[in-house]
Amino acid sequence: MKRTLGVCYYPEHWDEEIWPQDAARMVDARLSWVRIGEFAWSRLEPQAGQYEFDWLDRAINVLGQAGLRIILGTPTATPPRWMADKHPDMFAVDAQGHPRGFGSRRHYCFSHQGYRAESRRITELLAKRYGANPHIAAWQTDNEYGCHDTTLSYSEAARDGFRDWLAQKYQSPDALNRAWGNVFWSMEYNDFNEIDLPNLTVTEPNPAHVMDFRRYSSDQVVAFNREQANILRAHSDAPLVHNYMGRVTEFDHHAVGHDLDIASWDSYPLGFLEDRMEDEADHKRTYAQQGDPDFQAFHHDLYRGVGRGRWWVMEQQPGPVNWAPVNPAPLPGMCRLWAWEAFAHGAETVCFFRWRQAPFAQEQMHAGLLRPDSVDAPALAEAFEVAKELADAPDVKMDKAPVALVFDYPSAWAWDVQPQGRSFDYFRLVFETYRGLRKLGLDIDILPLDTDFAGYKLILAPGVFHATEAQIAAMIESGAQCLFGPRFNSKTADFSIPNPLPPGIPGLGVTVSHVESFRADMPRALSDGGAAQHWLEALEHQAETVLQTEDGAPVLLRTGRISYLGGWLDEHGLARVLNQLCADADLETQEMPEGVRQRHAGAERFIFNYAAEQRNFEGHDLPPAGVVRD
Amino acid sequence: MKRTLGVCYYPEHWDEEIWPQDAARMVDARLSWVRIGEFAWSRLEPQAGQYEFDWLDRAINVLGQAGLRIILGTPTATPPRWMADKHPDMFAVDAQGHPRGFGSRRHYCFSHQGYRAESRRITELLAKRYGANPHIAAWQTDNEYGCHDTTLSYSEAARDGFRDWLAQKYQSPDALNRAWGNVFWSMEYNDFNEIDLPNLTVTEPNPAHVMDFRRYSSDQVVAFNREQANILRAHSDAPLVHNYMGRVTEFDHHAVGHDLDIASWDSYPLGFLEDRMEDEADHKRTYAQQGDPDFQAFHHDLYRGVGRGRWWVMEQQPGPVNWAPVNPAPLPGMCRLWAWEAFAHGAETVCFFRWRQAPFAQEQMHAGLLRPDSVDAPALAEAFEVAKELADAPDVKMDKAPVALVFDYPSAWAWDVQPQGRSFDYFRLVFETYRGLRKLGLDIDILPLDTDFAGYKLILAPGVFHATEAQIAAMIESGAQCLFGPRFNSKTADFSIPNPLPPGIPGLGVTVSHVESFRADMPRALSDGGAAQHWLEALEHQAETVLQTEDGAPVLLRTGRISYLGGWLDEHGLARVLNQLCADADLETQEMPEGVRQRHAGAERFIFNYAAEQRNFEGHDLPPAGVVRD
Amino acid sequence: MKRTLGVCYYPEHWDEEIWPQDAARMVDARLSWVRIGEFAWSRLEPQAGQYEFDWLDRAINVLGQAGLRIILGTPTATPPRWMADKHPDMFAVDAQGHPRGFGSRRHYCFSHQGYRAESRRITELLAKRYGANPHIAAWQTDNEYGCHDTTLSYSEAARDGFRDWLAQKYQSPDALNRAWGNVFWSMEYNDFNEIDLPNLTVTEPNPAHVMDFRRYSSDQVVAFNREQANILRAHSDAPLVHNYMGRVTEFDHHAVGHDLDIASWDSYPLGFLEDRMEDEADHKRTYAQQGDPDFQAFHHDLYRGVGRGRWWVMEQQPGPVNWAPVNPAPLPGMCRLWAWEAFAHGAETVCFFRWRQAPFAQEQMHAGLLRPDSVDAPALAEAFEVAKELADAPDVKMDKAPVALVFDYPSAWAWDVQPQGRSFDYFRLVFETYRGLRKLGLDIDILPLDTDFAGYKLILAPGVFHATEAQIAAMIESGAQCLFGPRFNSKTADFSIPNPLPPGIPGLGVTVSHVESFRADMPRALSDGGAAQHWLEALEHQAETVLQTEDGAPVLLRTGRISYLGGWLDEHGLARVLNQLCADADLETQEMPEGVRQRHAGAERFIFNYAAEQRNFEGHDLPPAGVVRD
Repeated sequence: MKRTLGVCYYPEHWDEEIWPQDAARMVDARLSWVRIGEFAWSRLEPQAGQYEFDWLDRAINVLGQAGLRIILGTPTATPPRWMADKHPDMFAVDAQGHPRGFGSRRHYCFSHQGYRAESRRITELLAKRYGANPHIAAWQTDNEYGCHDTTLSYSEAARDGFRDWLAQKYQSPDALNRAWGNVFWSMEYNDFNEIDLPNLTVTEPNPAHVMDFRRYSSDQVVAFNREQANILRAHSDAPLVHNYMGRVTEFDHHAVGHDLDIASWDSYPLGFLEDRMEDEADHKRTYAQQGDPDFQAFHHDLYRGVGRGRWWVMEQQPGPVNWAPVNPAPLPGMCRLWAWEAFAHGAETVCFFRWRQAPFAQEQMHAGLLRPDSVDAPALAEAFEVAKELADAPDVKMDKAPVALVFDYPSAWAWDVQPQGRSFDYFRLVFETYRGLRKLGLDIDILPLDTDFAGYKLILAPGVFHATEAQIAAMIESGAQCLFGPRFNSKTADFSIPNPLPPGIPGLGVTVSHVESFRADMPRALSDGGAAQHWLEALEHQAETVLQTEDGAPVLLRTGRISYLGGWLDEHGLARVLNQLCADADLETQEMPEGVRQRHAGAERFIFNYAAEQRNFEGHDLPPAGVVRD
Repeated sequence: MKRTLGVCYYPEHWDEEIWPQDAARMVDARLSWVRIGEFAWSRLEPQAGQYEFDWLDRAINVLGQAGLRIILGTPTATPPRWMADKHPDMFAVDAQGHPRGFGSRRHYCFSHQGYRAESRRITELLAKRYGANPHIAAWQTDNEYGCHDTTLSYSEAARDGFRDWLAQKYQSPDALNRAWGNVFWSMEYNDFNEIDLPNLTVTEPNPAHVMDFRRYSSDQVVAFNREQANILRAHSDAPLVHNYMGRVTEFDHHAVGHDLDIASWDSYPLGFLEDRMEDEADHKRTYAQQGDPDFQAFHHDLYRGVGRGRWWVMEQQPGPVNWAPVNPAPLPGMCRLWAWEAFAHGAETVCFFRWRQAPFAQEQMHAGLLRPDSVDAPALAEAFEVAKELADAPDVKMDKAPVALVFDYPSAWAWDVQPQGRSFDYFRLVFETYRGLRKLGLDIDILPLDTDFAGYKLILAPGVFHATEAQIAAMIESGAQCLFGPRFNSKTADFSIPNPLPPGIPGLGVTVSHVESFRADMPRALSDGGAAQHWLEALEHQAETVLQTEDGAPVLLRTGRISYLGGWLDEHGLARVLNQLCADADLETQEMPEGVRQRHAGAERFIFNYAAEQRNFEGHDLPPAGVVRD
Repeated sequence: MKRTLGVCYYPEHWDEEIWPQDAARMVDARLSWVRIGEFAWSRLEPQAGQYEFDWLDRAINVLGQAGLRIILGTPTATPPRWMADKHPDMFAVDAQGHPRGFGSRRHYCFSHQGYRAESRRITELLAKRYGANPHIAAWQTDNEYGCHDTTLSYSEAARDGFRDWLAQKYQSPDALNRAWGNVFWSMEYNDFNEIDLPNLTVTEPNPAHVMDFRRYSSDQVVAFNREQANILRAHSDAPLVHNYMGRVTEFDHHAVGHDLDIASWDSYPLGFLEDRMEDEADHKRTYAQQGDPDFQAFHHDLYRGVGRGRWWVMEQQPGPVNWAPVNPAPLPGMCRLWAWEAFAHGAETVCFFRWRQAPFAQEQMHAGLLRPDSVDAPALAEAFEVAKELADAPDVKMDKAPVALVFDYPSAWAWDVQPQGRSFDYFRLVFETYRGLRKLGLDIDILPLDTDFAGYKLILAPGVFHATEAQIAAMIESGAQCLFGPRFNSKTADFSIPNPLPPGIPGLGVTVSHVESFRADMPRALSDGGAAQHWLEALEHQAETVLQTEDGAPVLLRTGRISYLGGWLDEHGLARVLNQLCADADLETQEMPEGVRQRHAGAERFIFNYAAEQRNFEGHDLPPAGVVRD
């Protein structure tokens, strides 16, 4: 396969006369792909039922004729204003009961059947018109599902849909009452139509109630996307892709990805560092112009799993953006580094967002490859450099990694619903585990619970709220070293505490008798270094104690190849666990210098320097933003 | 009297077959009391008017036959879902105007007459059926009034009720206008029906308006409870009790307690430390697994007053809970210590919450005496130890304390309405005074303003917003040393500044000419140590200056046995005041070691060690969680 | 002109019998002016159409006969309760959609045509009755426009008015779509009636949309005020004044001021320090009882511009107030200092708020010149001292200052809409510039963009979002040294990025190629001292580099008399820029000691000591709160 670059482009934003020049400049910059159309509904259908596709025909023709492969987006993230008159209740509703109206984007409720029909209608129009167009080389469904907290909606449509979903799942109110434990606090229902959405309750709602609503809400994203996918497939052989976001966990990306051919994501390293990470100010200062050294890689590995091997970066940050709390410029070279990090993790394509900075509307302060005055912006040269490097080198090979890390979206919902301690967060728990593995120089596959784990040397499943017997067996029987916990399988699928008590891992011989959460400023020290933080479980066991607290409480237990970790460990403690596991799994590790990361790809290795200073690693002198392929 | 232990139990949560075993285990654990029924409405009346009391008959029989005394709760804190269809407007409404709907608990507005009728109806059904049942040894009304901020409701029912209440109080709009000073900002009303609830105003509403709404709201809790109490008394001779919460000040507990026989409260030392105290992180770390050394004792003394001598702990924390920001486990021994601290303050009974940890619904992470798998949880052994100790020792004697501290709920409302400085809080002012007294080893009675103060050696009334002449006279004429202020009697009953200016204490010779609030980080130093913080009053006087600021402003003034304190003092400053007062009152004091507290009971003394380290006090070696009775 | 003192008085708050004594005491205190009436609507029209003006006739007579000049306020900031029944939708609506109802003040929406008619009606009644009354020497329109965030309203009236305003401005939806760039995200409108207010959108609305709503909202304040002004002028020759607030930027004060004769403002130095300034705790502690040394002067200079030379302090803080987070008492002497600082900046009159502290309603804890018991409060003696000093000295002369600083209200809206970095705030940017100039001992005029700048030696225009060619020319052609930037003219009037790129200053030779915002804890050091903070622009240029960052990026560029500053500088960096500019402009500067400020007035100079310690400045020993006139 040939790795490629691309760019996001909005022909409707510019005079038609400059389309040919833009296309030519894209080709000159060695960009292969151009994504278009995903916000253009008001130009395709300016009034209900009045269509204007000619301009898009011409744009596709200009771009395609210039030699660019086109990703055509369905425009459903931005329904036009007239649709709000047709479907006045189509908007999502926030937890306080306010409709989230027209005036920006993603102003629709996934549960609204009227809007679902509109989504299918416009998708079918596009699919029929362009499904066989040779320039259309891929389709993007919608745009950034879940962005701006749009997965959850407390609308009447969602309420009605949820009731129906519950009726299908439980068949009788009694079954639901038993599953949720509604006898508690007299919450029992006599009819599915009595069940409201779990917002605006006096104190916390039943976590089982919320968990089902979270599942229902995720299912609506899956269904919405599947409807588009089915229509597109009926008319086109081009692969289907969606562009996910960073650290969005409200819907199950694995389930959405199942209906698509390629996963992609929108990678904004500087924006995400300030906006979506809880790290200390010191860390954020250190990487202010480079982005976190692991955040992108984490999502690369996650979405490679979501795409079952096929994945892209659909939007790559090219300069300062407009939406983070602060918006600095990347260090020179970082746009190149970010692209190469993606390729080193198996990306097929990296598209920059966007071609020319728009001088108007919400994102006018978001950089592009061109400035608003069409002059080259700094990232264009870096993109061109990457394009040349791609052309001049052999393809990147991508093998299965030796380490499998489970990322389970329902677990994110579960601990969001019931953190039991204010600082417990599933994403962060998994991410810190990932970061610990990366700091040891390891390659990681991030995978769903339902995975064939055969062939991995090490499997880690931190924080998984519930796993079936089959899922547990698949991990254990893979022959890998397995690390479970904390909180592994601590709930039934119905969000109750199982009996016998967790973790319910056959052959392990560990029982969690109770759990504690504690102040972030009260870590509990481990013997010989490191500490548990946020979370610690009281463990009864007939296993080997590998790590314990200073006062003798077991923290890491092992029976054969199965280990159980009963706490959330700090960086030092985690490193001890991971080093032990790698030794047991016969995995070679390396202490990566601060800010330096590596990724193996076939027989090659890529080394990246995220530090703002020069680093030396194994004989390689790495300047800031340096990339080594060796 | 024989002090006893008990437990909260939910027969409706468990298979009926295990009720006998549970009852037997309770008796084996020497528990005397079992509280049931308070959340079981949906099982008693699964549909409107369709009753199922048989199971409760059987549960009472099983528990009673096993030898347990039963506290039966009215289930009005959790009306079933069908009632929301019958009374769609029964919910409380938050200050933003959102109904606080079904799905958790306490989902009713105290002002809603329809729900008030439902409350009387279900109470009467229970009272008639079980009023003469020999196993029912006490009744609990509702559950935790005011918890989850449910005293105040901005519903239409509350608005209508408030208008009627105002009409009864003021008789004419003109009288109300004069009392509130509505000429200010043209807020005058021509009709009681023009008066809205004091939420959603452009800037702050009239404090007199808010104060009357606070009084009205408290009155509704009193009326709601009184309706149940009257019905229960008509059918049963068993004593009536309500279980109050910690640091809930929105309704007048003294007024509610007037209609009941026993006060009780739900004591969660670890949850309250993190959730309801403003102390520094250092303090919270020090007592993270023990709870604050004074918070429980404060409420014990407060509710002993509310119960006019008779009081219980209805729910005692047995392990980690689920609802605080973090939920650690108690230090071993603390469940025993907490129980003994309650008995040392005169508790008749301490009930643990709950028997078996529920594996489902909201409180599934709340520990019980049994784990969800029915294995003994750590607290069960401690409960058993206390039971044995109770059996093996003479009863605790409870005398009037030498020190009276006034706690006046309307003052909490007044300074909530008009703090005049962001850090002014009535509860904390009184609590810090209490803590200062406890650190001197003193026993304290916490009492309402309307009290016969005869027999006390020292009376303290910090922060009382308004007192009648009779109330002031009762304190002064008791013969005790009296400490008034800060802010004592600084408002009329109508929430105006009185003329002559405060404090209006006959014979004292002090006038507060104006007041200042100031930054918490700008304490004003006193001569010879300590400082005023948050609050300082400018005092004109013909009294003796006992304490003054470094620049000579009087802070503590004295005329005979009456002292006036014109500021909120820090720990050191307060200790100086209290030591002086105790010396004047001929009260012996002791410097308690950090974390050590004592309580006299008859001729005995109890000593408690809240510290996580061993302490020595007057020859007693106290381990962590240690209790000495000597 | 003779500078005078005055006081705010509420005859309706007091028994009529004491009016004569109050008037006599005012005259004895040498107060010349008394403001009345501005909250008295419910006493003038207790029921709709039922008028009671007699009491006001008598009050005017008593005060006027005593020799006081009266400022009569229109009572429109406090419509009576009956009006809410007449116009149930007259209230402003907050951004969450909640009406901001009756019960305090300013409970009206500027867009509501029904209330606009009521405002004209009551104004006309007053104007006709008192327009020729010889005691009425000035009129105040309404009270503190915009206070309590009341400029913006999301009501239906505002929505309808906004649609009409847009239709008038753009004439066609297409023109609006083009101006706003609505093709972005398919936000195009087919009809003006499709346009909603920019609240409750899913993510940020189009900044051009918000900017027009901000302009519309400001225009409604202007129109509301103009309606009153036109009526008053038709019946009275007395000057018209409005009392603005501190740091209210939501409406264009210059535009409102255009319709009035005199600007005034309500100066609460201690309240504003805690409530409306972001300075560090250390600064707030230092000036806790004196107020910020520059905040009052800034507003004096600003409102002198708004009043085109004529301005007053309408409300001067006399002691502790009730509305700030903390409310300390002023240091003795500060009331005198504040009054003299106003006179030194050209105030014609300083009125204290208020005569007697009200014992009731919202402001009962707000000090007055008298205590609630009518005893002199501390400020009365200071007011009297100022009155004597005024009488004993020649008038203060006021000349044009050598330095012009632009304050442009639309720029405040623009950067509120699109800060692009969380710490960017237009008011603070201009205020810090002002403070930097004051610390160099300079006198400053604060002026709108539309100004004849002839005669100034130095003109500064930081943060101006858009300027017309004519406005830029007026500055450049004045012959002054001109400093533009950061962000100068970085948007078109339609809120787009201009092409060519900013700043578009003829002859300067500077282009901003892109911008960065960054963490407040990551300043970028300048060569030789100081740093850029929050904001830095990448500059392409053919100008002289005056300042640059340590890594060589230009920050201050100069071509002839025109300089461009491409960042927000810290105190040290700013001082370097200002010193350079002053040297170039041949302006003498002085390093003012900490807390000491000066103001020239004709041939005189006033020196003020805001420090709590004695200061020496150029041979003057200045006690705390000291004032020197030399």
